Amino acid sequence: MSPSPVHSDQQRGWIMPVGGAEDKLRAPTILNRFVEISGGRDARIVVIPTASQLDDTGARYESVFRELGAGDCTALGYAERNDADRDDWHEVLQGATGVFFTGGNQLRISAILGGTRVAQTIRRLNAQGIPVGGTSAGAAILPEHMIAYGSTGGTPRAGMVSLSPGLGLTNRFVIDQHFRERDRLGRLLSALSYNPFAVGIGIDEDTAALISADNMVHVVGSGTITVVDVSAVAHTSMASASEGDPLCITNVKLHILPQGARFDLQNFEAFPPDNSN
Amino acid sequence: MSPSPVHSDQQRGWIMPVGGAEDKLRAPTILNRFVEISGGRDARIVVIPTASQLDDTGARYESVFRELGAGDCTALGYAERNDADRDDWHEVLQGATGVFFTGGNQLRISAILGGTRVAQTIRRLNAQGIPVGGTSAGAAILPEHMIAYGSTGGTPRAGMVSLSPGLGLTNRFVIDQHFRERDRLGRLLSALSYNPFAVGIGIDEDTAALISADNMVHVVGSGTITVVDVSAVAHTSMASASEGDPLCITNVKLHILPQGARFDLQNFEAFPPDNSN
Repeated sequence: MSPSPVHSDQQRGWIMPVGGAEDKLRAPTILNRFVEISGGRDARIVVIPTASQLDDTGARYESVFRELGAGDCTALGYAERNDADRDDWHEVLQGATGVFFTGGNQLRISAILGGTRVAQTIRRLNAQGIPVGGTSAGAAILPEHMIAYGSTGGTPRAGMVSLSPGLGLTNRFVIDQHFRERDRLGRLLSALSYNPFAVGIGIDEDTAALISADNMVHVVGSGTITVVDVSAVAHTSMASASEGDPLCITNVKLHILPQGARFDLQNFEAFPPDNSN
Repeated sequence: MSPSPVHSDQQRGWIMPVGGAEDKLRAPTILNRFVEISGGRDARIVVIPTASQLDDTGARYESVFRELGAGDCTALGYAERNDADRDDWHEVLQGATGVFFTGGNQLRISAILGGTRVAQTIRRLNAQGIPVGGTSAGAAILPEHMIAYGSTGGTPRAGMVSLSPGLGLTNRFVIDQHFRERDRLGRLLSALSYNPFAVGIGIDEDTAALISADNMVHVVGSGTITVVDVSAVAHTSMASASEGDPLCITNVKLHILPQGARFDLQNFEAFPPDNSN
């Protein structure tokens, strides 16, 4: 599910993973921001509640996004693979100025939409400049490699995480969500140990990473983002470790970044918020 | 580790996964074929024995490829991540007309070479027309998503397979090797169930898939290739199944293909050998 090619006269749209449990009422900074980058009053946001098994998830986001001033918002409730054949829904999707995946189980998104024209269209929209975001499971699904499930803990162990192909908007990073709240540094490190080429982005609840076309990560929200940079890793023991063994990994670089901080995915460089300079 | 872009004036080189235990002495059809597509007398083959922990694996392939008439063959024994910094080796790699990964453990290849300039150079060479092949672990590593390990059996169960990012030459298929000999249809089906977008290619021992620039799979060798086409899958239960549960998956198409048969990865169409028409 490789990223769609970005044509030379176009810029990829924002990619906006959210760590889950974002404030929807009192200080909805993150969802506000999504409305804004989707066009505000002119936005036509499509919500994809496929990860969720609650009937009202789509409707809830529809009303939140409308209350925040989005011109239009429609939830498309893809629940089985053949729903991708619905032409009426597909037409709405093709006209979206923003696409947002709700939380739930990321494997529902990949198992229901993987390999369908819906996944293809969303990749194409993003390559043409349309922002694509998602919260919790909806954040995990965005890149090429996704954490499907795993166990808790701050340090990595062999076999503690299971990967799956994701939506494939980009292959620069792997997302983990509810990061601080569910103590997931260990599983993110394990995920990166298989093949240390991607950057790990661990996102706390009520926190988002806004990732620009030139691969700058901007932190928004009340928590932090933990960036796990494995570009200088000298050794991982993933190939020799047995299930459950503590993993050996050397030269990992960590950055814990609050709102206003940035991380450059191209040059592996972190910038604290301007006011802390 | 997305595939390197193929420029419009170039064709991607052959991708040649081998199922393991290929005949090296009496009827070395497969390795002969690799020498041939690498340029025969003019070939400069680079062998990468990183998957193996036996000291003589590289030297053994060097002598086999030379005996089969390759103009030159050099094994580059990358064993730690910082070996990727060796400029003398990298120069040899950059001049290769064919790159071949030996068997062993595919996680050694991803953990040692993933994210290094070696992986990048091999993707670039392939995009520029150079054939890249590998046997067993060396076959598993070739695509974007690789089976890292898993358990045996003909039918799929949740949690029976672990995926990892691979080398990323292509994202059209996932490889499994020693296919018939180790009864791996179940784990290949499980791997595809996460996100049914790729084609599964299960390769028996002493059998190879020669995959052309236009994504036609040609079968060579004494065994068969099992193609698992999930493009019409209507349902997978991967998202709801618990560890160890039998998986539900509907509308999988299978093709068992011997030498001379072909499979078109673009149009999902199988062609039996000409002599069986």
